[in-house]
Amino acid sequence: MRQEASRVLLVGGNGFIGSHLIDELLRKGYSVRVLDRNPEIFRKAVPGVEYVTGSFADLFTLREAVEGCDILIHLAHSTVPSTSLNHPEEEVLASVGAFVNMINCFKHKAIGKIVYFSSGGAVYGNPESLPVFEEARAKPISPYGVAKLMMEKYLYMFSYLYGLEYIIVRPSNPFGPRQNYMGEQGVIPIFFRKILDDETISIWGDGKGTKDYLYVEDLAGAVVSLIESGFDKSIYNISSGIGRSLLSIIDNISNICGKRPNIEFVAKRTHDVSNITLSFDKIRNRTGWVPTTTFEDGLIQTFKWIQNTKSNMSK
Amino acid sequence: MRQEASRVLLVGGNGFIGSHLIDELLRKGYSVRVLDRNPEIFRKAVPGVEYVTGSFADLFTLREAVEGCDILIHLAHSTVPSTSLNHPEEEVLASVGAFVNMINCFKHKAIGKIVYFSSGGAVYGNPESLPVFEEARAKPISPYGVAKLMMEKYLYMFSYLYGLEYIIVRPSNPFGPRQNYMGEQGVIPIFFRKILDDETISIWGDGKGTKDYLYVEDLAGAVVSLIESGFDKSIYNISSGIGRSLLSIIDNISNICGKRPNIEFVAKRTHDVSNITLSFDKIRNRTGWVPTTTFEDGLIQTFKWIQNTKSNMSK
Ligand SMILES: NC(=O)c1ccc[n+]([C@@H]2O[C@H](COP(=O)([O-])OP(=O)(O)OC[C@H]3O[C@@H](n4cnc5c(N)ncnc54)[C@H](O)[C@@H]3O)[C@@H](O)[C@H]2O)c1
Ligand SMILES: NC(=O)c1ccc[n+]([C@@H]2O[C@H](COP(=O)([O-])OP(=O)(O)OC[C@H]3O[C@@H](n4cnc5c(N)ncnc54)[C@H](O)[C@@H]3O)[C@@H](O)[C@H]2O)c1
Repeated sequence: MRQEASRVLLVGGNGFIGSHLIDELLRKGYSVRVLDRNPEIFRKAVPGVEYVTGSFADLFTLREAVEGCDILIHLAHSTVPSTSLNHPEEEVLASVGAFVNMINCFKHKAIGKIVYFSSGGAVYGNPESLPVFEEARAKPISPYGVAKLMMEKYLYMFSYLYGLEYIIVRPSNPFGPRQNYMGEQGVIPIFFRKILDDETISIWGDGKGTKDYLYVEDLAGAVVSLIESGFDKSIYNISSGIGRSLLSIIDNISNICGKRPNIEFVAKRTHDVSNITLSFDKIRNRTGWVPTTTFEDGLIQTFKWIQNTKSNMSK
Repeated sequence: MRQEASRVLLVGGNGFIGSHLIDELLRKGYSVRVLDRNPEIFRKAVPGVEYVTGSFADLFTLREAVEGCDILIHLAHSTVPSTSLNHPEEEVLASVGAFVNMINCFKHKAIGKIVYFSSGGAVYGNPESLPVFEEARAKPISPYGVAKLMMEKYLYMFSYLYGLEYIIVRPSNPFGPRQNYMGEQGVIPIFFRKILDDETISIWGDGKGTKDYLYVEDLAGAVVSLIESGFDKSIYNISSGIGRSLLSIIDNISNICGKRPNIEFVAKRTHDVSNITLSFDKIRNRTGWVPTTTFEDGLIQTFKWIQNTKSNMSK
C-alpha cells in the first residue's frame, strides 16, 4: 500500500510530537515539509526538511505550503485542556474556526489526504467503562476536548461532502524527549525537572487516578503505520493500554533520579478526567502496530534528554 | 414542578418558532422577554412581552436582557443547513463562538437554566436506522449540523464544570403560520406560495425521501411541557414520528389549494439528509406530551395564514 515519493506537510510540525514524526517520516523515506509559526524549541533545523514559517490560518501561506504535498498532518493547536478554560471562545475561534477555514479550502483538492491529531485523553470526557474503545460516547469536559471533537466532526462532514480522505488519531498522553519540561502539559518531564531542581511537586487530587502514557516514538511509529495502511476515514486510539497513577509515576521517576520529591496535594481540577486507559485493538488489527518501548525505557530516554538539555542550557 | 412567576428570556424569540413560544408561554402565565436583533416579520409587538433589541453576542445588551430572568431559551442562529455551506467558518465564528462566549458568562450564575434549540433534522446526519432515538450517533453532514452538535457539547461541558441546568431540544421540521414563505427554509409555506403564485416547484432529488414534519404549536407545547418537568440536563427529540415525502406533501397542498403545481426535478444536494423520522418516546415518557394537531389541520392553518398575509400585503 506504500505510496511512492509522498511529500508530507506537518502543520505544527515543530512541536513535541511533530519533531518525532519528522524523524520517523524521514527514516521511512518520505519528503517532509513543516508549516509552523515557530522553530523547534530544542533542535536546530533538521537537514532534509523544508520549512515554511507562518500560521495555517493565513491561507496565502498555507497555499504555498501545501503545494506539491499529498498528505497533511494537522498538529497545530493553540491550547491544552487547562489553558483552554481561560478563554473558551478563543479556543473556538482560533482552533476550530481556522481549521474549518483550512479544510474548506481543500474542497478544491489542493490536498486530498489528512491526518488529524485529536486527543484520546480529552474527547471522551469521564468514560463509562475502561479501556475506552473508539465507539465510546464522546462527552468532553474541557473546551479543548469539545474543540477536538468538533474538528473530527467537521472532517467527517467535509469528507462526506467533498471526498477528502482522512485518518483521525486520538493519542493518549505521549511523553519523551523534547516535551517541554517548562510547559503547561506533560507531567513526566515536569516531574523530572522538579525533582532535579528540588522543587515541590503539586498534585491536583489524591494522585491515585490513572491515565494512559505512551512513549512518543511509539506514537510516531503508529501514525506512520496508519498512513501506510491507507486513508480509511476512520478514528484510531493510540495508547499503551495501561493505566498509571501520578503517585506510581513519581515513584518510577524518583528511582531514576535517585531522590524523592516533596509532594503537595491540592484540590482536584474539575476539567481533569479522573481515570482513563484507551484500547489500541483497532490500530493493532489494522496495521499490526503495538507499543514497543517499555515505560521504564521511555522514562530513561526522557531523563537522559532532560539532563543533557539542562546542562547545555546552563553552559 | 411548576415554578411560580418564572420570567423567560427568548433569545432569537422574534423568529418563527419563538413567536409561537411567546404565545404558549403567555398562555401558561409566564413573564416573557425577547432579545432579538429584529422585530417579528409578520406581527406587531405582542402586548405583555418586554422587548430588548440587539444581538446576544453583545454581552452588555445580553446582561441587561438576562437581568431578572430565570430561564433562557436560545433560538438565535444565523444560518440554515443550506446557507451554512457557503461560509462554514462564519458559522463557527458567528454561531458557536458567540454562544460559547454567552454561556461562559453564565458560570457566574447570571442565569441558571437554559433551553437550547438544536436540530433533529441536522445533528444525526444520515441515520443508520429509523426512527432515530436520542442516543443515535451524531454524524452531521452540514456545517449547521456540526455547529448545533458542538453547542450541545459545550452546554454539557459548562454544565459539568459550573453546574448550569439545561434541556436540549432537537425538533424535526416545524411548519405553520409565520414561517417565512419567502425564506430559505420551510418547504411547506414555500410550496403553498409557489402553487398560489403559479410558480414551478424545484425538487432536489426524486422527492421520495421522507422527513418528519411537526406543527409548530405542538412544538411550542412540547418545549413548555419540558420546562415544567424540570431541567434534567437531557436531550429530547420533538417530532411527529411520521415520515412524509415531498411528493406526498405536494399532493396534500395541491388538494387544499385546488390546483396542481408544475414540478421540476433537480440534482440532489449532498448536504441533504435523505430519510429521517424521529422517535418522540423520550419526551412522551417524561411529560406525557404527544402531537395533537393532524398534519392536514396544520396544513389548513398554514394555508389560511398565508392567504390572509398575502392579501394584506398586496393591499
Ligand atoms: N502532547 C500531548 O499530550 C497531546 C496529547 C493528545 C493530543 N495532542 C495533540 O497533538 C498535537 C501536537 O501536540 P504537541 O504536544 O506536539 O503540541 P506542541 O504545542 O508541542 O506543538 C504544536 C505546534 O503547533 C504550532 N502552532 C500552533 N498554532 C499554529 C498555527 N496557527 N499555525 C502554525 N503552527 C502553529 C506551535 O508553534 C507548535 O510548534 C496537538 O494538536 C495536540 O492537541 C497532544
Ligand atoms: N425552523 C426549522 O425548521 C428548525 C428546525 C430545527 C431547529 N431549528 C432551530 O430553532 C431555532 C429557531 O428557529 P426559527 O425557525 O424560529 O428561526 P428564525 O430564523 O425564524 O428565527 C431566528 C431569530 O433569531 C434572531 N437572531 C439571529 N441571530 C441573532 C443574534 N446574534 N442576536 C439576537 N437575535 C438573533 C433572528 O433575528 C430571528 O428573529 C434556530 O436555532 C433553528 O436553528 C429550526
